[in-house]
Amino acid sequence: MSTPLSINGPRLVQDLTDLGAIGPAEAGGLSRTSFSAADREARAWYLARVAEAGLSAEVDGIGNIVVTSPHYPADIAALPAVWSGSHIDTVPSGGRFDGALGSIAALEVLRTIHESGVALARPVKAVVYTDEEGNYARLFGSSGLVRGYTREDYEGMVGRDGDRFLDTFADWGGDLDAALRTRIDPASVHATVELHIEQGPVLEQHGEQIGIVTGIVGLGGGEIVFHGQADHAGTTPMRMRKDALVAASGFLTRIPEIAATGGDHAVLTSGIISVAPGSRNVVPGTASLTLDYRDLDPANLVALGDAITAAAQEAAAAAGIEAEVHLRATIAPAPLDEGVQGVIARSAGQRGFATRRMPSGAGHDSQNMATIAPTGMIFVPSIGGRSHCPEEDTAWQDVENGANVLLDTVIELASS
Amino acid sequence: MSTPLSINGPRLVQDLTDLGAIGPAEAGGLSRTSFSAADREARAWYLARVAEAGLSAEVDGIGNIVVTSPHYPADIAALPAVWSGSHIDTVPSGGRFDGALGSIAALEVLRTIHESGVALARPVKAVVYTDEEGNYARLFGSSGLVRGYTREDYEGMVGRDGDRFLDTFADWGGDLDAALRTRIDPASVHATVELHIEQGPVLEQHGEQIGIVTGIVGLGGGEIVFHGQADHAGTTPMRMRKDALVAASGFLTRIPEIAATGGDHAVLTSGIISVAPGSRNVVPGTASLTLDYRDLDPANLVALGDAITAAAQEAAAAAGIEAEVHLRATIAPAPLDEGVQGVIARSAGQRGFATRRMPSGAGHDSQNMATIAPTGMIFVPSIGGRSHCPEEDTAWQDVENGANVLLDTVIELASS
Repeated sequence: MSTPLSINGPRLVQDLTDLGAIGPAEAGGLSRTSFSAADREARAWYLARVAEAGLSAEVDGIGNIVVTSPHYPADIAALPAVWSGSHIDTVPSGGRFDGALGSIAALEVLRTIHESGVALARPVKAVVYTDEEGNYARLFGSSGLVRGYTREDYEGMVGRDGDRFLDTFADWGGDLDAALRTRIDPASVHATVELHIEQGPVLEQHGEQIGIVTGIVGLGGGEIVFHGQADHAGTTPMRMRKDALVAASGFLTRIPEIAATGGDHAVLTSGIISVAPGSRNVVPGTASLTLDYRDLDPANLVALGDAITAAAQEAAAAAGIEAEVHLRATIAPAPLDEGVQGVIARSAGQRGFATRRMPSGAGHDSQNMATIAPTGMIFVPSIGGRSHCPEEDTAWQDVENGANVLLDTVIELASS
Repeated sequence: MSTPLSINGPRLVQDLTDLGAIGPAEAGGLSRTSFSAADREARAWYLARVAEAGLSAEVDGIGNIVVTSPHYPADIAALPAVWSGSHIDTVPSGGRFDGALGSIAALEVLRTIHESGVALARPVKAVVYTDEEGNYARLFGSSGLVRGYTREDYEGMVGRDGDRFLDTFADWGGDLDAALRTRIDPASVHATVELHIEQGPVLEQHGEQIGIVTGIVGLGGGEIVFHGQADHAGTTPMRMRKDALVAASGFLTRIPEIAATGGDHAVLTSGIISVAPGSRNVVPGTASLTLDYRDLDPANLVALGDAITAAAQEAAAAAGIEAEVHLRATIAPAPLDEGVQGVIARSAGQRGFATRRMPSGAGHDSQNMATIAPTGMIFVPSIGGRSHCPEEDTAWQDVENGANVLLDTVIELASS
């Protein structure tokens, strides 16, 4: 399908610039923790843009904002809708594109459709999911929509600043009973599509404009604890040591090799390490490290876990000590819809963009929406692959390209 | 030389048991930080034992206690003395033998000499050095004796509990002017010898009773910082990473091999490691680790520093990143006197003990005393090699053996 329509680039850039000025962090970048004053300001700003565009918004019981056009004919408005959107909360000292791009681009798509008067076969809705960055729960807003939370869930939620969710939510004006009732009717959603920055270096390094996301990787996690023996660094001869850190390093050097056992896209990271007792003049008695491993294929996640366990035991045995390996597969992979991928590919091709099919290594609300409706994601390049930091950036041309591919995709999905 | 004298084993055991009950720590073991209430109680207890034995003590301007016999003839008393002693302060949650053994054994030697009426050619003095564990300065008491401190030195000293030395010292009744005047006259010391637990596993593992210390190792220290790049653990392909921790592990695995370049006794320890930003889902951007390396030979210390630097640069280069290596040789090796070693060996041989010549991997006041007089050290086995912890222990038979070798050695040194 070829559409004569394109989004309004300058308006999109202006909106992203304005939203990018809300919630500046002392340490640089933006801090819009969900339900914080900065997040509330961003929500109010967004709702003002919705009203200004002559669109209407509903805020559900847990703060998700769903925007629709009041101009859809009644028979169209009643049909399952095409959803598009992302989030406007950020990590502390985050960037101005993660979430914001997909949120504003979806609004811009709706504005473009609204203004053009293009006739669609079903409604299109722009959505802002609450707390995607998981201050209170992983992918809070979309998880609540597709799975719901119990009273006990809400009572147990604590934010990164130590606040109880229920207190912050009540202060925001939230109603617990409404929150408990909030769930999406899967039959009300025809398809969903989300535009997002890649948050990695792949598109930029290959000079490609559009990533067609094949799925969101599954995530395994865990810890390894190497149990050696703490000894005096001066009085214990080398051959009598059971140095837990030296043993751990025998595992860490093998990280690239272990990741390779999980396939081309598999990644493995040890992001935190600590030793005890942790003194300059004491041989480390224990060394503990975290694990984060990801792949799109559940079988590869199993293979990674097996390779991690084997390598840890080998490293410990080589040092004459013990290793405890605790693994947990926390999040299953979420393959995205091949039909939606095809629509994205067609649009990008017609607009002349170089594309790449690629998994998303980061989590997104789309992985929840994919459990109730055909779902796709569009990536645009991140400069230097940076994200979740003040340096997060994407060229305005790529922003516009991505929004136009989103426009085409949404229109095609809503045309039948 | 063979002496018919032996120390009073039960009295020595009783004293060590009594001193081992002063300053129990909540976390187990003993906490007798210098000048703390527990340390003051231990000092008072020690001075009571001195008085009870009919000996006399002088406390110098920085708290070192020097015990002598009032019964030496005036011409003998005026001669350069044989000193023996150690310390009664401890690390937090330390053991009851480190320092205490050498302090009480020296007192026991003096009591035995005093009681036996053996005629010596020169006086013997038992000493308790202040703050060997370095709460205010490394080997505080003996360093003050041999090198002295300036007013600025004292003003800058802060204890591990955050207290200023001058405040604590004044509260104890110390006089800064007297402290500033305190120095030892090297001509007043003929020789020194210190009995100490090994604090390592070597004697026990070889079934030997007495260690003849050849010297106190020199100590090098430093840090290495590996500078990689922090990236998202999900979105950054393995081949595009600059993982500082994986690079650091390429260095850490080589620790045993690097130590071997420093000779048979060289040791190398990385006791602390940290990564930044230090998040489960972020590839480490920097990895920082500490270095502690020791050997008796200054040339080996240089070789170790060179091997460390080369290995760090190789590990960084293999990972395509940079390493900063900061080394400092803080403490020079202190070889001990060969004549005194011979006296110790003779005594141990005559008493039928298996001996080993070995360096001390830990620091001791003897390394300061060795700069002004011929000095030796005697080691006895540490059970399991444990020290600076509640589990620190030495068999009573080894305590008695060591004290008798100390007695013989002191008597021979004082006999000519």
